[in-house]
Amino acid sequence: MTEPASTAADPGRAGDRQLILDLVLGYCRGVDRLDLDLVRAAYHPGGIDHHTGFDGTVEEYVRWLEPKLRGFDGTMHLVANQLVGFSGERAVAETYGMAVHWGTPADDPRLNFTSGFRYVDLLEIRAGRWGIVERHAVREWTRSDAGIRMPAEANGPVGARTHDDPVYVQLARLRAEARP
Amino acid sequence: MTEPASTAADPGRAGDRQLILDLVLGYCRGVDRLDLDLVRAAYHPGGIDHHTGFDGTVEEYVRWLEPKLRGFDGTMHLVANQLVGFSGERAVAETYGMAVHWGTPADDPRLNFTSGFRYVDLLEIRAGRWGIVERHAVREWTRSDAGIRMPAEANGPVGARTHDDPVYVQLARLRAEARP
Amino acid sequence: MTEPASTAADPGRAGDRQLILDLVLGYCRGVDRLDLDLVRAAYHPGGIDHHTGFDGTVEEYVRWLEPKLRGFDGTMHLVANQLVGFSGERAVAETYGMAVHWGTPADDPRLNFTSGFRYVDLLEIRAGRWGIVERHAVREWTRSDAGIRMPAEANGPVGARTHDDPVYVQLARLRAEARP
Repeated sequence: MTEPASTAADPGRAGDRQLILDLVLGYCRGVDRLDLDLVRAAYHPGGIDHHTGFDGTVEEYVRWLEPKLRGFDGTMHLVANQLVGFSGERAVAETYGMAVHWGTPADDPRLNFTSGFRYVDLLEIRAGRWGIVERHAVREWTRSDAGIRMPAEANGPVGARTHDDPVYVQLARLRAEARP
Repeated sequence: MTEPASTAADPGRAGDRQLILDLVLGYCRGVDRLDLDLVRAAYHPGGIDHHTGFDGTVEEYVRWLEPKLRGFDGTMHLVANQLVGFSGERAVAETYGMAVHWGTPADDPRLNFTSGFRYVDLLEIRAGRWGIVERHAVREWTRSDAGIRMPAEANGPVGARTHDDPVYVQLARLRAEARP
Repeated sequence: MTEPASTAADPGRAGDRQLILDLVLGYCRGVDRLDLDLVRAAYHPGGIDHHTGFDGTVEEYVRWLEPKLRGFDGTMHLVANQLVGFSGERAVAETYGMAVHWGTPADDPRLNFTSGFRYVDLLEIRAGRWGIVERHAVREWTRSDAGIRMPAEANGPVGARTHDDPVYVQLARLRAEARP
């Protein structure tokens, strides 16, 4: 293996690559905004997820995940490198990322930490839609942020884990404009 | 909202997406290299910016920003996830990123910190060019790096906040070659 | 210079941009998985690399790099912003990234640190393939992670610096399926 699989033979599949990237970014938006429908939508029904401390279907995964997420004040899943290898209507995507978690009290390392991960996803097209069939979420490293978080400053735009978040508000306005 | 807006209906708009990504990356290059024309160029004239501690036009924003940037020894705005929703010649882009700030003395947390942000940008095409009409820079988290920065090693390529930076030097050479 | 070079004149070159991004991501996969053929494949033969503490050809670089990498328990090179300027069959790519290094003992700052970098790459097409002709790896900042790494949890997917890593296993399965 001397080249990333995605550059072999057909260098293109640009449209499929964009859809797969959006799918993973949509998953991250779902986790960070507590929009669990969006988390679920990244997988095909019955898709399998392997996380640290969890193995099961996406439906079970979302039930396992939600109370954990609610235990934090917030999370941010920053996505970096994505390499995709295709075989017809199936693909393997490796996505690098870093997840920042924060909570109260700010000196609790179980609530304040950053981890590096790689999502290794087997995806396929079903009924015209890409979805995850099996995800391995590989944990690479974890670093405590306990005691080094700085207080939020209130005088600026703030996020929310509801549809009041600025991105949902702006997208809703854009859609409203588009209506006749 | 069960799917990222950008995958709806028209999965393409690849060219517009690339232009919008480049616009945000150009903004970050401008901030990190102290190239304020490049910062300004990301917005349409009169475009509005909302930052922690600032609300106003891009022209006012750049005047507010410059002395702050000069107070640091350097900054690095790493850009990750970008999801874009379109409606004709308007778009909403959410861009995740992480900004590293360093300064002297290295144990001052006001000069040495990393923050997570989301740019929520309303953009539109005017005179054939995408530009920001309104930006909400959402601050997600801030972590002190005071006292854990390690000294720079001098025996390798170093950056600059001038046109002597390696990327400007290499781009200038490339352009010079291209001339007849 | 008021706009990123890549947006000038020809906004496209989408295929070339994807190939150059994959090339840099392939390099990072090679480093992180200790797959040195993949590292080498990012450069043209005889390509020059400038790193902190190293200047020489890619062949010399890989020999210099390998024992350093083996001294860590692992590395992760997260890639963010990439802006590319083209001139015919040559290009200059600036790629932002962050490299996380971990090792034993976990309180040794020489083995546990994170650095911000920019790869400033001069690339060209030779025999139909993009490759690096000269790389400047600009070190931006370095932060010690000594003493704040948290122990790995064993009950989940783990990475490897061999072909047993989940991404190699899944890609091999995908290729096996594709055979008649």
